[in-house]
Amino acid sequence: MRPQDLIEKKRDRGELSPEEIAFLIKGYTRDEIPDYQMSAFLMAGFLNGMSPSETAALLHEMLHSGTVLTHDDIPEPKVDKHSTGGVGDKTSLVLGPVAAACGLCVPMISGRALAHTGGTLDKLESIPGFRTNLELSEFRAVLKKCGLGLIGQTKEIAPADRKIYALRDLTATVPFKPFIVASILSKKIAEGCEGLVLDVKFGNGAFMKNLADGRELAILLKDAATRLGKKVIALLTNMNQPLGQWVGNAVETQEAIDVLKGNLQGDFAELSIELSAQMLIAGGVDTSIEAARNKVISAITSGKGLEKFRDCIRLQGGDPRVLDRPDILPKANHSAIIGAERSGFVTAVATDEIGRIVMDWGGGRRRVEDLIDHSVGLQ
Amino acid sequence: MRPQDLIEKKRDRGELSPEEIAFLIKGYTRDEIPDYQMSAFLMAGFLNGMSPSETAALLHEMLHSGTVLTHDDIPEPKVDKHSTGGVGDKTSLVLGPVAAACGLCVPMISGRALAHTGGTLDKLESIPGFRTNLELSEFRAVLKKCGLGLIGQTKEIAPADRKIYALRDLTATVPFKPFIVASILSKKIAEGCEGLVLDVKFGNGAFMKNLADGRELAILLKDAATRLGKKVIALLTNMNQPLGQWVGNAVETQEAIDVLKGNLQGDFAELSIELSAQMLIAGGVDTSIEAARNKVISAITSGKGLEKFRDCIRLQGGDPRVLDRPDILPKANHSAIIGAERSGFVTAVATDEIGRIVMDWGGGRRRVEDLIDHSVGLQ
Repeated sequence: MRPQDLIEKKRDRGELSPEEIAFLIKGYTRDEIPDYQMSAFLMAGFLNGMSPSETAALLHEMLHSGTVLTHDDIPEPKVDKHSTGGVGDKTSLVLGPVAAACGLCVPMISGRALAHTGGTLDKLESIPGFRTNLELSEFRAVLKKCGLGLIGQTKEIAPADRKIYALRDLTATVPFKPFIVASILSKKIAEGCEGLVLDVKFGNGAFMKNLADGRELAILLKDAATRLGKKVIALLTNMNQPLGQWVGNAVETQEAIDVLKGNLQGDFAELSIELSAQMLIAGGVDTSIEAARNKVISAITSGKGLEKFRDCIRLQGGDPRVLDRPDILPKANHSAIIGAERSGFVTAVATDEIGRIVMDWGGGRRRVEDLIDHSVGLQ
Repeated sequence: MRPQDLIEKKRDRGELSPEEIAFLIKGYTRDEIPDYQMSAFLMAGFLNGMSPSETAALLHEMLHSGTVLTHDDIPEPKVDKHSTGGVGDKTSLVLGPVAAACGLCVPMISGRALAHTGGTLDKLESIPGFRTNLELSEFRAVLKKCGLGLIGQTKEIAPADRKIYALRDLTATVPFKPFIVASILSKKIAEGCEGLVLDVKFGNGAFMKNLADGRELAILLKDAATRLGKKVIALLTNMNQPLGQWVGNAVETQEAIDVLKGNLQGDFAELSIELSAQMLIAGGVDTSIEAARNKVISAITSGKGLEKFRDCIRLQGGDPRVLDRPDILPKANHSAIIGAERSGFVTAVATDEIGRIVMDWGGGRRRVEDLIDHSVGLQ
């Protein structure tokens, strides 16, 4: 097999076999196939399409290019949630503790803020001392102790995805759904989940701008993860305005704590409850969504979710007093109220612009290497 | 300007401006743009197409990436011929001397055998001592003295083409006409010709397998060269059987010498005369093709063409006695007549297979670095 022959096959709209995809991805990860052949293949795939079988093979190879965790020593069902990225989306900080309090194991490997969207890791790191860079062995120990671990991607997880993503970023081959699917799922499934709830966002604050695009991505994600034996539930949720009241890092963490303390008003609490309930369904803990929702709500009102978060913060090196003392979180030096120039009704929100303002203030990243100011935010 | 934005533009079927094409080609030639971005761009261009204006810009940048010769000190019209490659095609060895004898300057930079097709340089090098690797200054001196110089591509000529061709070869982006056009013409026009006769071959011994493909390539070549101010005439010629009686290197050189000595029977002599006459038209030496043909034929029958070849061979270090003594050419150690297994009529010839047999015997190259056995051949 020669890489150029497989590039030619895709160039001519052929479908590659799983063995051929494996040859390309394994060879590229081992530095046996050069960047310039992989980028030609990626462009040919982007323009000529990748079939569901090719996408599944791509995902399989990227997943198995690194460590794939298993948690056979933990009896609880392993379930996680993945969001395709939005503005003001802090649901992981609620649903992680709540789902764990309801009897799931939640092995959550999350991402960071990029472009106008926020990232779970950056929000967590606004908690003084909280370590998201645990070794995989530490991660497993935390998971075993409290049923919830919250870390970032490590170098052992899906190295092929890391290498291919860097190449895609420089060759205009990022916005292509089969590649997005393989990239998302190779990282998510490596964490060892059996069930996965997908929060596929659409609207002007999401990467998928309309419902049709969101639906297509949701179907591709569900198809590919199901082929790998995962129980998958996908929600399509509206991102035409920021989720909840706040956008930023410390401010969103505080908002999540408030929900865990029983403030169940508004879209953010509603989505957090719904996603948690779907996780219970995906994990087989409940079969009725009504029962699951009730279980989630009582895990919040009883304070069990908050206590689970406290355990997790302590185990990951954070200061658990943050749950009772908002002053422990970083706070912006200046604040101002900006009034509207004239009276009227808000009929639409430029959600991505709001995300970009917070990014410009230092709350997000223009480039991967940018540092975060956790204190800035917008209500 | 960033390479990834230009790749994206072509990915989305946009048309790049000459400035954008220049940015890519200049950057790539200077090693400022990496292979992996160029290969993604090449694949996007291959699949989404390149407009005539983009092709012309590509050609312009590849041409001016290196030395572009001018011969202002030579008063004769500078005219060359280019063939897209065939089997048994030794016309350059006839038309070069004949056109020069008829008052043209023929600055011919040729190629070598590759795959099943032969190469002018390899045929010339079957003449003992003949040097095709002259420095450009030596080439110019030979041209000035006898009106005919026959060399190979030097490192100064179109370095961008050399670099891009090597990349195309490894990324399945070779068989795309706009790239073929830019590659061919960037080398040809750098030699300093004002007029160019194109011999675009079609059929089972050519790279273009049918007339329609040949015609499309001929039109693209003519369009691009005309935009650069060249006088271009394109012929479409049939390559469904080898040209002439012999395929090989020394054997074809001998066959060309025989034509120069007045043997004007057969398709090879006919095409040589026609191409020479079209060169006279392209150079403005004649306006009537009938008059041009007669001039060519009398340049042969008078022996002027042969004497021009003698001058050129001597000036390029070869042994001019080869024109009178066939025994000076390399001769195969063995020869055999292979009879047909049964009687019948030849209705079709597997031309490419004939080329491949000679290649397998050592008369051609499977890879660029293969050595040539000039003595082998097939009648």
